[in-house]
Amino acid sequence: MQIGMVGLGRMGGNMAERLRRGGHEVVGYDRDPAISDVEDLKELVERLRPPRAVWVMVPAGEPTRATVEALAGLLAPGDIVIDGGNSHYVDDRRHGDELAAKGIGFVDVGVSGGVWGLDNGYALMTGGDEAHIRALSPVFDTLKPAEGGFVHAGKIGAGHFAKMVHNGIEYGMMQAFAEGWELLEAADVVDDVEGTFKSWRQGTVIRSWLLDLMVRALDEDPDLSELRGYAQDSGEGRWTVQAAVEHAVPLPVITAALYARFRSRQSDSPAMKVIAALRSQFGGHAVSSAEGSEGLGADSPGADVAPPA
Amino acid sequence: MQIGMVGLGRMGGNMAERLRRGGHEVVGYDRDPAISDVEDLKELVERLRPPRAVWVMVPAGEPTRATVEALAGLLAPGDIVIDGGNSHYVDDRRHGDELAAKGIGFVDVGVSGGVWGLDNGYALMTGGDEAHIRALSPVFDTLKPAEGGFVHAGKIGAGHFAKMVHNGIEYGMMQAFAEGWELLEAADVVDDVEGTFKSWRQGTVIRSWLLDLMVRALDEDPDLSELRGYAQDSGEGRWTVQAAVEHAVPLPVITAALYARFRSRQSDSPAMKVIAALRSQFGGHAVSSAEGSEGLGADSPGADVAPPA
Amino acid sequence: MQIGMVGLGRMGGNMAERLRRGGHEVVGYDRDPAISDVEDLKELVERLRPPRAVWVMVPAGEPTRATVEALAGLLAPGDIVIDGGNSHYVDDRRHGDELAAKGIGFVDVGVSGGVWGLDNGYALMTGGDEAHIRALSPVFDTLKPAEGGFVHAGKIGAGHFAKMVHNGIEYGMMQAFAEGWELLEAADVVDDVEGTFKSWRQGTVIRSWLLDLMVRALDEDPDLSELRGYAQDSGEGRWTVQAAVEHAVPLPVITAALYARFRSRQSDSPAMKVIAALRSQFGGHAVSSAEGSEGLGADSPGADVAPPA
Amino acid sequence: MQIGMVGLGRMGGNMAERLRRGGHEVVGYDRDPAISDVEDLKELVERLRPPRAVWVMVPAGEPTRATVEALAGLLAPGDIVIDGGNSHYVDDRRHGDELAAKGIGFVDVGVSGGVWGLDNGYALMTGGDEAHIRALSPVFDTLKPAEGGFVHAGKIGAGHFAKMVHNGIEYGMMQAFAEGWELLEAADVVDDVEGTFKSWRQGTVIRSWLLDLMVRALDEDPDLSELRGYAQDSGEGRWTVQAAVEHAVPLPVITAALYARFRSRQSDSPAMKVIAALRSQFGGHAVSSAEGSEGLGADSPGADVAPPA
Repeated sequence: MQIGMVGLGRMGGNMAERLRRGGHEVVGYDRDPAISDVEDLKELVERLRPPRAVWVMVPAGEPTRATVEALAGLLAPGDIVIDGGNSHYVDDRRHGDELAAKGIGFVDVGVSGGVWGLDNGYALMTGGDEAHIRALSPVFDTLKPAEGGFVHAGKIGAGHFAKMVHNGIEYGMMQAFAEGWELLEAADVVDDVEGTFKSWRQGTVIRSWLLDLMVRALDEDPDLSELRGYAQDSGEGRWTVQAAVEHAVPLPVITAALYARFRSRQSDSPAMKVIAALRSQFGGHAVSSAEGSEGLGADSPGADVAPPA
Repeated sequence: MQIGMVGLGRMGGNMAERLRRGGHEVVGYDRDPAISDVEDLKELVERLRPPRAVWVMVPAGEPTRATVEALAGLLAPGDIVIDGGNSHYVDDRRHGDELAAKGIGFVDVGVSGGVWGLDNGYALMTGGDEAHIRALSPVFDTLKPAEGGFVHAGKIGAGHFAKMVHNGIEYGMMQAFAEGWELLEAADVVDDVEGTFKSWRQGTVIRSWLLDLMVRALDEDPDLSELRGYAQDSGEGRWTVQAAVEHAVPLPVITAALYARFRSRQSDSPAMKVIAALRSQFGGHAVSSAEGSEGLGADSPGADVAPPA
Repeated sequence: MQIGMVGLGRMGGNMAERLRRGGHEVVGYDRDPAISDVEDLKELVERLRPPRAVWVMVPAGEPTRATVEALAGLLAPGDIVIDGGNSHYVDDRRHGDELAAKGIGFVDVGVSGGVWGLDNGYALMTGGDEAHIRALSPVFDTLKPAEGGFVHAGKIGAGHFAKMVHNGIEYGMMQAFAEGWELLEAADVVDDVEGTFKSWRQGTVIRSWLLDLMVRALDEDPDLSELRGYAQDSGEGRWTVQAAVEHAVPLPVITAALYARFRSRQSDSPAMKVIAALRSQFGGHAVSSAEGSEGLGADSPGADVAPPA
Repeated sequence: MQIGMVGLGRMGGNMAERLRRGGHEVVGYDRDPAISDVEDLKELVERLRPPRAVWVMVPAGEPTRATVEALAGLLAPGDIVIDGGNSHYVDDRRHGDELAAKGIGFVDVGVSGGVWGLDNGYALMTGGDEAHIRALSPVFDTLKPAEGGFVHAGKIGAGHFAKMVHNGIEYGMMQAFAEGWELLEAADVVDDVEGTFKSWRQGTVIRSWLLDLMVRALDEDPDLSELRGYAQDSGEGRWTVQAAVEHAVPLPVITAALYARFRSRQSDSPAMKVIAALRSQFGGHAVSSAEGSEGLGADSPGADVAPPA
């Protein structure tokens, strides 16, 4: 089928390519004229035959919002806008309402797959009306992996909500591997840590794509010495925790994984300055730069050891 | 090769079977005479040709300890004892020393695979001397999955240490999926939770054997209504946390997963009784059975709402 | 000075009483005619001399919002509305803007003290313009404890933000005591747990009002057997975590305390059903009701123990 | 009464001083001859009249163990050894047994109070036989604060166990304040953070000695800019978590506080290197130094924003 693609970066560009390989006609728009098929969104819409489908693949938040608003002014009743970015499910509902007021359909799609998706396919979690999902099925069938990887999760917002939770789970799993690696390295009981991770790929309970990626990473840099322990977080991790708090669902593992990322970006921890300050207060001013002696229940090591004489 | 197998339960029995299918001669001992090939450990040892290999597959702790001690009294220099159970790596060192004093070798093997191992093979993490590992390689080659799943992790104890960390990672991953499922169910945004989990098996970052098992579980009981949220923990989870504390390694995710299991076995939480008690103290005796009003910074809902009149 | 008080429940009523004892003239309104000085908000406003001060002490959320809106329609430029409830600081900003558009001032006050406040005074954290705070200082001076307990924290919203963080800290402190008590009870090393808590009130690092309350609670019910481990949470705990997530601040302790409350209200944990389901999958259908054997790395205890024979 | 004091460092020296001020006769031994009353432990024992009481105030672990062993060889039946250091309660039991075999009594005392204890008294948590505790009561009465602060918690080990849990609670409380401070600083809603902490000392739920210390610390260094966020942990925090794991007691808050200290001492987090490595694998080699794009579900911000044209 024919489809418009707005945003031709790493994700949008690859998805357009996979669609073309699958026999679809893609009209792409990007603000970079060098890679854009059209001058602007207006021309994009004109180039598409009604009923049109326009897939938006731009950053979540303001860029997506602006794009959806612009499309709302250009499209006609019966057309469908697809948001394949990482939008918050709450935004989907607003976008869906605004477009519905003009008779335009809206479908949100959580997309997973990264650079591997071009060849392997993209996992797709979709939200929206059954009729809109059905109309787009040729596109979904081409984008998804051959064996599956597609779900119509529910109404508008359900696709991004499912993707959000997917990413929350991903945070927890990644942190579990990370902690295991740190303990193996620190305890120095296992000599062949890299080989241990490799061996885990067969027959174990923890075999997984993330483990495969871990092994790839260790192949390239066996002790990860070329990396800093610094990790961004995307909106999804934060939204997962905020949704959990809203619904009174305890998420200790996913939240701990998120907080570990927050902490990784602090060169010094403000909270731990307070701990240091309180510890020095226990001992009076004289020890404010000292190294320890919690509660001063006993003297610091070395202070007055009485060897049996 | 020829090998003795002590303990013919679900794990030991299946491993003996896989070894026999692989052409090895297994002499099995179990305290249940109905499934034992020999009367006692003494006969087991007599039936094996030196240098002997005896694989111990009994519960960790006292049973393993008693078995190793008995074997130490029966075996001869040049023989090898293999502990394939879930022993603490600290015990391995003691066992290794005791056997070494008599010229008997010791190898510890962390085994993963469960009931699936009979057909798919068992992941094996081994610790011990290179020569002992090499002597046992025919056995390891038969037990492990066809494509890999074997590592000589290090000296005595390294096999069980690697398996311990594997299980710690497993705890974290399981809890991540569990939290994701709870949030999906509670938030009620995604209608097709089961379908969402199924779709995640292809193309996503979280695809894994645990996800496959999760889908199997949902196939059998779509809303898990037949289960209680009650989970045992094995020694490995606790030992992982204790090793981390010993080495000053922060393990927030693995520990949270362990604590969630502890909590799952409490019908009522003693700690939360304290919270309830303190909350009722804030408000004085009169409200000790009341439902809330943290810090009484404002009146309880409903108490004195002033609708604009 | 003269002040209107909207909401005469446990908090509002006591505060009105403390103000009267301090020589102020309080005109109170409550929807319960039996305790109200006026028929409605309109009469309340009429009874006050301009410039008026009206203290709103009703539940956060809709009741406060409705009251502020009604007052916006009744008051005159130069008047001041004080929100002493547990409102979200984000709401304060909206209320402040709406009132400011009519020339009416707004001050938010986080109040702590509970039933003890009538006699001991209320801790007051305030947000708003310096001029408004100054105009209300006679009221604040009477309400606060004799020795202090008042802060002008910042602009509108700062008072409730400070109170929100106060409550977050409170959650963490309460949970720390709760965990300590549970461990003392479970470990059974300390015989006199109640006496231990009492002794901690003098000379220790953890002496605090919460410890005093803990001792009071143990005096009334030494093993807390009359309480269920069930704890509500107020909005502040959730808002604290959400603000932290928004600002990328890791709050492991406060969040863990909040999650413990969430968990305390679940009779069964959905997440732990997933853990139970996965554990039974490891071992195949046959063991779905079994008690353990993580990863089936070794047989279950008792299954095939081989006592040395 | 007469008492021997082994270890005259900051704690032991101050305690000896407080005892002398209280009318007791203290014979002190320290390996530093400049402050020692005797040449060695042998002379210390000779200087004391039977039945003797010797208070050991040296670092936990090897120094305490060596001192207790030496005393076991020098003292006589009827004498009592007191361990006032920060020993693990498990060590107490061994020490108690060894001394009991020679008819020598043993009492363990958890001591809290730091440099403030000299003037204010030391909180004392004691474990041992009733008769031994009673014999030492003149000493305890002098050391403890005037109003209380003493408990006979239980049998040998109970004193140090109570102190251990005290310190665990302390960790949680300190971290709660620390997190609150970090959030206040990061959110930038409250302008007067220092004033807010000061105001909390009266009338609030969180008023406590730790809050008083926090205010003192902020008085000296209002934004804690002179401190690094680096915190040691003492044995007690670790032992608390290990005891909890042993008894299957979930301690999320205390453990999180301990882990925050572990993390504070890492200049870079090994675990977070794994997170960084996995994140770069998602996106292929080309993005291994990139700043983000979790799961590459959508393009990175700025990559291909399509402004409505």
